[in-house]
Amino acid sequence: MESQYMASNNGGLEGANGGRGKEVGVANKRKVRGSDLILRFLGFALTLVAAIVLGIDKQTKLVTMTVVSTLPPISVPVTAKWHYLSAFVYLVVANAITCAYAAISLLLVLANRGGKKGLALMIIILDLLMVALLFSASGAALAVGLIGYQGNSHVQWNKVCNVFGKFCNQVAAAIVVSLLGSTVFLLLVLLAALNLHKKH
Amino acid sequence: MESQYMASNNGGLEGANGGRGKEVGVANKRKVRGSDLILRFLGFALTLVAAIVLGIDKQTKLVTMTVVSTLPPISVPVTAKWHYLSAFVYLVVANAITCAYAAISLLLVLANRGGKKGLALMIIILDLLMVALLFSASGAALAVGLIGYQGNSHVQWNKVCNVFGKFCNQVAAAIVVSLLGSTVFLLLVLLAALNLHKKH
Repeated sequence: MESQYMASNNGGLEGANGGRGKEVGVANKRKVRGSDLILRFLGFALTLVAAIVLGIDKQTKLVTMTVVSTLPPISVPVTAKWHYLSAFVYLVVANAITCAYAAISLLLVLANRGGKKGLALMIIILDLLMVALLFSASGAALAVGLIGYQGNSHVQWNKVCNVFGKFCNQVAAAIVVSLLGSTVFLLLVLLAALNLHKKH
Repeated sequence: MESQYMASNNGGLEGANGGRGKEVGVANKRKVRGSDLILRFLGFALTLVAAIVLGIDKQTKLVTMTVVSTLPPISVPVTAKWHYLSAFVYLVVANAITCAYAAISLLLVLANRGGKKGLALMIIILDLLMVALLFSASGAALAVGLIGYQGNSHVQWNKVCNVFGKFCNQVAAAIVVSLLGSTVFLLLVLLAALNLHKKH
């Protein structure tokens, strides 16, 4: 009897405030969806830029070498390419995968106006996997880039950035853009969690 | 009028099935909470093991060196330590932070029997940050470990694992355990998202 009373009371309240409540709900939904779309497009653009900036990275320099000590040193052209280091290959591939996923998910979110729950959940899970992929790739490239920049005397790995300065700057730019892209996907997962949390 | 009828109808249904629905709900909640606690403990154990395995890694070896070509080569003790490479320092620190967080969050989840929503949301957000931290650290250590294992002829970084085999094996073990720990935190965020999604 009590539950029935409470239920009809709720029904009455809904009748009085239903219109305004619905409007606020729709406005909130639009706001969340708008932020999601903007962030997703930003993620797409950032990962695309990171993949391209590192993917076209190449520098040729004349390095002076002494072959025979009695002869004067000769200059040999040496080229640094992005695919010489596996960590950089991983960064380019990870950014390319995430960029393609961002484009597809952007279309899916735009098409999913009805708000199918299964699709929304799938997108959260994939967003989360992209966070893991991009952060591991950025970490890998950053670690190798740091050794290239500073060298490491303990293992006798010499720095190479004093010779290939432009190459290293381009790598650094790609890593920074990739880290921004990772943060965007992190924010997308956060936004989804906040949104689900608010609804529930 | 219609909304009132529907509301009282729902009230009636609740009256009839309320008991069973509540039981199923509580059972589900317990199941989710149980998985969360088990995963969180697993994450704590894995990150603790990873931090310790890498944190005590050290190997001294006698390396034969030729100082003067007319004299016989001499043996010099050379030590490999985990903190010689910044990527390994990052991995140990990241695992230590995550381990401490796992312990604290385990206590918080255990204490939060009432299910405060704000705390639950904070834990999801921090879990997500741990995913990013651990994956970037594992990626960094893996990239540097691979160069130590294979070397890289393009930048003339020689492999060191042929000399310090035991040291490298211990690094590899720490990276594998750390990657397992990262996956556990990924699963924790996934579980929370699934749970929120199911409720909503």
